[in-house]
Amino acid sequence: MKIVNFLTSNRSKFQEADRILGNSPHIQLVHHHVILPELQAEFDEIVINKCMTAAAIIDGPVLVDDAGLSCEALNGLPGPYTKDFLLKIGLEGLIQILSLYENQAARAICTLGYTEGPNKAVKLFTGSIEGTIVKPTRTSHGSCFDAIFQPNGCNSSFADLPLGEKNKFSHRYKALMLLKDFLTLDNQA
Amino acid sequence: MKIVNFLTSNRSKFQEADRILGNSPHIQLVHHHVILPELQAEFDEIVINKCMTAAAIIDGPVLVDDAGLSCEALNGLPGPYTKDFLLKIGLEGLIQILSLYENQAARAICTLGYTEGPNKAVKLFTGSIEGTIVKPTRTSHGSCFDAIFQPNGCNSSFADLPLGEKNKFSHRYKALMLLKDFLTLDNQA
Repeated sequence: MKIVNFLTSNRSKFQEADRILGNSPHIQLVHHHVILPELQAEFDEIVINKCMTAAAIIDGPVLVDDAGLSCEALNGLPGPYTKDFLLKIGLEGLIQILSLYENQAARAICTLGYTEGPNKAVKLFTGSIEGTIVKPTRTSHGSCFDAIFQPNGCNSSFADLPLGEKNKFSHRYKALMLLKDFLTLDNQA
Repeated sequence: MKIVNFLTSNRSKFQEADRILGNSPHIQLVHHHVILPELQAEFDEIVINKCMTAAAIIDGPVLVDDAGLSCEALNGLPGPYTKDFLLKIGLEGLIQILSLYENQAARAICTLGYTEGPNKAVKLFTGSIEGTIVKPTRTSHGSCFDAIFQPNGCNSSFADLPLGEKNKFSHRYKALMLLKDFLTLDNQA
């Protein structure tokens, strides 16, 4: 059994990860409420840096994540800056900006970083999913950009899917599955 | 005479600062070409973090800066993310986004961070200037957002001012004057 310390200030991210990894006999996820600084950079560099900071704090195996929404018409923005972007101008602001463009294609990205401890290599696991920016409905639940992101092949946004559905195929699900495979193999080695 | 190590990857920022501080008998600015990581945060926090990193590298008195353009209609964006924002969508992209709004007001901000060395306090000096976003002309010179920022009371953008004019009243000039006063007083104390 491998204990993995997930450092995140967002409890729902931990719960989502715990549900997805929870059925593994090899992994026990432990939540640490820590706000880790994030660099201005691309996802990989941000996550490597967060992971190294986390490992120094915990002095053991740690997991960190970063996620965002890359809009094609904005050449990848808001991308790693999604959280701050939405804090400043909201979902409405982003939708308004995208109303300038025909191209409403976007990609939801989640990058996880895992390391065994300080001075060990950081492994990255990235999951992404293609979709379209849509207007939020009145009934939208979900966090961050869930209410305006409709995955290709779905008839509704992440936020309007039946509860639990998102976790079966989301960008975070894909990244967590890659991590789970890695940790399971690692455990058997 | 105080030697101040200015760590910046942008040589023209160093030259601008050197011209503005150059006539002081108390300060000698030395350029170090270093790319310092920048956090996702507000200007003050970014600059404090950069300054502490710089002091650890140089082990002596260091100066760092950060600058950006805060647009009122975008609730302060792109702000500290101006460089990445313009890399992704260019000046045209920002102008296009702002075409959605009547409010074209913007503020150019420069925050300098200075410290005597590692584990010493970081002093911040912020200069800002109000203006309006304008379309670039064909003849625009200047870097970053100079071509689209017209300071209030001017008839042209920073980029279209006669060479050297900008340095007499810019956001960076104001911040550097505050630093100069501080260092001069400090030197006389």
